[in-house]
Amino acid sequence: MKTISENRCYGGTQGVYSHASDSCNCEMTFGVFMPEEAAHGPVPVLWFLSGLTCTHENAMTKAGAQAWAAEQGIALIFPDTSPRGADVPDDDAYDLGQGAGFYIDATTAPWDKHFKMWTYVAEELPALVGENFALDMDRQSICGHSMGGHGALTMALALPGRFRSVSAFAPICNPLNSEWGRKQFTAYWGADESQWGPHDASVLMQGEGFDGPILIDTGTDDQFTALLGTPALAQAMAEKSQQGTIRLQKGYDHSYFFIATFMEDHVAFHAEALYA
Amino acid sequence: MKTISENRCYGGTQGVYSHASDSCNCEMTFGVFMPEEAAHGPVPVLWFLSGLTCTHENAMTKAGAQAWAAEQGIALIFPDTSPRGADVPDDDAYDLGQGAGFYIDATTAPWDKHFKMWTYVAEELPALVGENFALDMDRQSICGHSMGGHGALTMALALPGRFRSVSAFAPICNPLNSEWGRKQFTAYWGADESQWGPHDASVLMQGEGFDGPILIDTGTDDQFTALLGTPALAQAMAEKSQQGTIRLQKGYDHSYFFIATFMEDHVAFHAEALYA
Repeated sequence: MKTISENRCYGGTQGVYSHASDSCNCEMTFGVFMPEEAAHGPVPVLWFLSGLTCTHENAMTKAGAQAWAAEQGIALIFPDTSPRGADVPDDDAYDLGQGAGFYIDATTAPWDKHFKMWTYVAEELPALVGENFALDMDRQSICGHSMGGHGALTMALALPGRFRSVSAFAPICNPLNSEWGRKQFTAYWGADESQWGPHDASVLMQGEGFDGPILIDTGTDDQFTALLGTPALAQAMAEKSQQGTIRLQKGYDHSYFFIATFMEDHVAFHAEALYA
Repeated sequence: MKTISENRCYGGTQGVYSHASDSCNCEMTFGVFMPEEAAHGPVPVLWFLSGLTCTHENAMTKAGAQAWAAEQGIALIFPDTSPRGADVPDDDAYDLGQGAGFYIDATTAPWDKHFKMWTYVAEELPALVGENFALDMDRQSICGHSMGGHGALTMALALPGRFRSVSAFAPICNPLNSEWGRKQFTAYWGADESQWGPHDASVLMQGEGFDGPILIDTGTDDQFTALLGTPALAQAMAEKSQQGTIRLQKGYDHSYFFIATFMEDHVAFHAEALYA
């Protein structure tokens, strides 16, 4: 693991690191915020999965999460959203290829050599950060934005016992019925839908549900409303009597200004679960 | 004035606007955050002047100021740091030309046609925003970072009665004795130092001082310490018995992570003066 930068931040440290990833078969970069409490022992962990076009950097610099994580004594992990590099396949579209890993493992060429973001975020990166930082890996929660909201929700639902709470800002809730989903699944998994994985929060919710609280914020003026599929997840949560809250925030859109506005609520929500 | 974007943010609106600037002789872009209190009447104003290489956007997206401005019911104005455009002179160096206006009015060619950032920030932009937004222009304060800290301090000192309080993050305090100053003054004003203006906070402090409180935060690990000239201003403030505080923050550097960490303090400091 290489240290790219470390900056003092709210009494703790905002670092950026890179490492040779086995699952993604390329160098991967990620951010970690460690609160000052980490000097005295392992601290709980909140993952933040970012959306389309983002790298590890966007949420790290624009979401304002460190202020609240420092207050609560929680570490933040900011993974990248896809493999990167000249050898890694890409597409001219902003929503396919680099910057658009969709938190799944690709099975078809040319994507299958590098696009293993499920394995990377669910297995490889947790092992790496667990070994290299003072993190209490028995206390983890997860959050995400847009495509990263899809990632956070599907990981929380598909990995029971891993996360104590899950939240999302404007998540893609029902990718199987959205062009933010079908397009990428077709590319990464092939056209035969019978081979597609169960990476859809609204479908997964119909199974066991999530053993913990869920918080979702979506703006009423989100410019991508039709692509998010919020109604499908709202319906599934209600049918399941899933513990959770869906807030439709008046006048807010899909931007980081929206995320920053409600970040304090999300970190406090996770802190309650992490310190329960 | 053209609206480039408006995003709902902490109950208010973060907007980006542009206009044809008379003083800079080009189209200029700026950001304005209006808290929700502005719906009911004019609100106090806090200017934020940015540093080298920045546009209007950096502080607007990375400093986290809106959270605290919303809490205090204060508007934020984020000017650009120089004129821009294909017709505007530039230099290959990051610290000269576009992105490096230094908050002074250039008098020598080729800079003198566009580089009038003193007049722009001190006169033209206040008139424009005062006319177009619900701002109480009798209640203004000013803040800045690095080159923008130099701008904030020199404006507060040279425009008595304009600002109720002034603060800065890692400001350039003594540009007459720094390559962050001499280089730009030589370019914009010419080599004859007798023609240089009194745009140096440490020198201005030796005059009347500032009729209000000053707050300065600078990191002990600032990578540009030698260029900032903090000792000169500290000495001048002490000799003057100037009301104010200089904090040297252990372990912090020159980055926006440093700014964000102490932004709450700065906005609260200005709010106390603005609502006194």
